[in-house]
Parts: sequence; C-alpha cells; structure tokens
Amino acid sequence: MYEARKKFAHHLADIAGSLVLKYFRQPLSVQEKEDSTPVTVADRTCEQLIRDELRHHFPDDGVVGEEFGKENEHAEFVWVIDPIDGTKSFIAGLPLFGVLIALLHQGKPLLGIIDQPYLKERWFGFCGEATLYNGFVVKTRCCKALSNAVLFSSADETMFADHDDKRRFNNLCKQIKTTRFSTDCYGYAMLSSGYGDIVCEADMKLYDYAALFPIVCGAGGVMTDWDANALFQEKDSGHVLALGDPSMLETVKDILKK
Amino acid sequence: MYEARKKFAHHLADIAGSLVLKYFRQPLSVQEKEDSTPVTVADRTCEQLIRDELRHHFPDDGVVGEEFGKENEHAEFVWVIDPIDGTKSFIAGLPLFGVLIALLHQGKPLLGIIDQPYLKERWFGFCGEATLYNGFVVKTRCCKALSNAVLFSSADETMFADHDDKRRFNNLCKQIKTTRFSTDCYGYAMLSSGYGDIVCEADMKLYDYAALFPIVCGAGGVMTDWDANALFQEKDSGHVLALGDPSMLETVKDILKK
Repeated sequence: MYEARKKFAHHLADIAGSLVLKYFRQPLSVQEKEDSTPVTVADRTCEQLIRDELRHHFPDDGVVGEEFGKENEHAEFVWVIDPIDGTKSFIAGLPLFGVLIALLHQGKPLLGIIDQPYLKERWFGFCGEATLYNGFVVKTRCCKALSNAVLFSSADETMFADHDDKRRFNNLCKQIKTTRFSTDCYGYAMLSSGYGDIVCEADMKLYDYAALFPIVCGAGGVMTDWDANALFQEKDSGHVLALGDPSMLETVKDILKK
Repeated sequence: MYEARKKFAHHLADIAGSLVLKYFRQPLSVQEKEDSTPVTVADRTCEQLIRDELRHHFPDDGVVGEEFGKENEHAEFVWVIDPIDGTKSFIAGLPLFGVLIALLHQGKPLLGIIDQPYLKERWFGFCGEATLYNGFVVKTRCCKALSNAVLFSSADETMFADHDDKRRFNNLCKQIKTTRFSTDCYGYAMLSSGYGDIVCEADMKLYDYAALFPIVCGAGGVMTDWDANALFQEKDSGHVLALGDPSMLETVKDILKK
C-alpha cells in the first residue's frame, strides 16, 4: 500500500525538480498574489504537473497545494505539495529553495521530501523510518546549551508581522549563539542533517510544514507548535518549532512563552 | 606585471577552495575570537596556506587577512584575503560562504575573487574588465523602482549592533520588495549576476569588501559607503552599499540618511 506511493513520491520530486530548475536564475515573470508572496510561473506550472500526475496514477488521493487549493481533502491519502518553498530565495538566485512533497494518511503525516534540485540534494522522511539524505541516513545532533545553538528561520517581514510573535521570537534569538535567516525549508534540512539545532517560524501553512515533519522526526528531532503542542490539528496556530535535540523542548517552550 | 598575479589569484582560490571544502559539513572545533565570530580550524589553516604561497611566489607583496593581520601593508601590491567569508553559514552547513581574494595596487582595488567551492562557482573581477562568473561575462540588472527591488544583507546581531545603523537600514528595507538575509559575500555575487539590486551592510572591514568591489563594478554596479562616498579611504565607516543599477544611488543614499 505504501511502497507504490513511496516510489511515486520520488518520481514527483524528480519531475518537479527538473521543471523548477529550468526557471531558476532565468528572467521571471513574477506575479503578485493577495498575500504578496512572489509567485513564479515555475511554481504554477510545476504544481499543475504534479496534480496531473497524481490524477493519472492515484485518482482517489486528495491534493492540497499552495497554488491551486484543495481537492478531495478528506481522502485516505492526501498529498500536500509546495513546488517552490522559498520563492523569495528562488527569485533572488539563492539555491536554498526546495520542492516540498508530503503525503498524509488519514490526516497523519506519513512521508516528506525536501528536494533542492540545483544542489542535487534530497531529504526523504517516512513515518517510523530513519531520514535519508541522498539515500544515506542522517541524524540530528545533541544540543548541550542554547548558548551554543544554531537557529534557522525564514523570519521575513510577513512571518513576524504579528508584534507578539516577533517579541517572543526575539527572546529566543537573544539566547542563541548563531542565527541564520531567510532559510525556508533548507533550515529544517540542515537541522535534520545535524548542522543546526532550532528552527522557529510563524505564519506557517500545512503545505509549508507537512513535508518537513517526517524528515525532522525521522532524523531524531521533534516538531511542534511554540507551546509544544502537536501539529496537524484542526486549529492550527501556524507557529512551528523544530528541535534537533528533543530534550531542549521544555527550555525553548518556556522562553517562547515570555 | 598583472598577468602573473591574475593567474596566481585563481591558483590561490583553487587551493583555498579545496582546503575549505574538506572542513565543510564536518564536525568542527569552533573557536571564539574576541569579537565572537566563530572561527574554524579551516579558516586559520587556509589563511596560513595562502600566506605561505604568497611568500614563496611574491615575497615582496603585502598581505592583509582576517586571521593573522597585516604584513608589509604598504607594498605596491597587497593581497587582502578572507578564507571563509560567512563563517556562520559555513558552520550551519549553508553553501553561501565564500573564499575572498583581493589584490590592491598602490592602495586601489585591482582584482577580486569570490569562490564558492561547494557550488563550484567563481566570480572574478578585474579593474577595467567585465566580471566573469565561471569564465562567462555577467552583468547587473536595471532597477526601475525600489518597490520591486531585491535586497541582500548579512544583517546579523553584530552588524547592526549600532542602533542608528539599524534604524537607517530598516528605513531602506521598508521600501524594498524582497529581502534576503544572512547572505554575506554571496549577496554581492547574486547582485553581480543580476539576481538582486542592493546589498546594504555595516561593520565591514577591508577584508570583507575588498574582493567584492572589482566584481560589483566590473558587472556594471557601484559600491560606496552609505553616503555615496568612495570606499578604500584611510577613514573607513565600515558602511557598505552595493547597487546593481548606479542610477539608484542618490535615491538610496537619501533613504539611508534619514
């Protein structure tokens, strides 16, 4: 039941990555959406391609995507896709964007892929299995002290538009040794490979984090909201916290409360 | 007179890039410097290697480096090197760091290299010549309006520690469409290749910007301090502004004044 979809997820990442790459570092017709995220032709073309493939091979599965909304979202299997996570990096020529492909089974995260086609890097997570980076097992690292930690965050103007979110996030940053911003999905990838310790983000939609969850968890990390509550709930705060070392959860939660 | 050093600059970038790459995404013994920048063994080993090569091939030339200070700094030719610009990205696994190699002639910037060894990307600038990206000519792009611009900045805690710098920088960011942070030298590289419009930074030392200048200028851009004054002066504010489109200089200068 799972094997066919596992293989198919890689196929989707292959074709999506190839397509997206054709538009990278090329003149783009950047469009404006209501929330003023830059959306490229690549983004829409790619999501359409993925939806067509799914309709053909798994016609009963549901799809949730950033560009074209929800189809059959209460199906047993639902694919959650973001063809270009990190569109701002994409249009700025930075190879930190990623193709995100997730599969939910009965509403629970089963599979996740972060594919960086320019760097030919792929992180693959599957519920109950070890996370793979280009086929090799990766693990998060221990974090002995926040004062030594590396924190990633997209942290752009829209993400922390809420003043209280910004204040709480800044409280955390003050305790951290090294911060890297504008990282999008690539921060979660680096955390999963053991090069960083924390990702803290707000204003996250299902299609932003669904693919990341199995990757972070399968590498030994933990992903919750800022209050350490489970993600994938009906009511979703959009606050996402990923930690490479689960033993830091209480400490970080307490700092984010203030 | 110039040709031998031009060729040698590439040789330095080759050996430095190879060395640095051996340490990338490996467990590191991160040391603390007084200014609390993380410095890696790679950084020091690499600067020493470059200095040894220079001493052997151009013993009369001066050297200025981040790690081991100044040697013969009033020589006709002075090499200015930063083996790993973007050490924070380096330790966080992000391939946006770069090897920076510059050559000054009689105090004026003659040559600059940004080498990204993980991505096998090299930008090469030489006074009066077109900037090359992996051997191909690149050009900055026109910027019709700030409201469409892409701005890069390292913008970390230490860079804008000065409250007034931070305020001026934020004034500029408010006018910009897309900001990408934690970019270090890679922002200047993207600007030179025409994927962005502005880099605005503070607290920059000679070894941070010397290599960037010939690259940005040779691609059609301009690089000054925040008041549009020339860089490479005795008194150096550490404020660096790079624009892909020189016609934006007055506008940006005025915003940064406020």
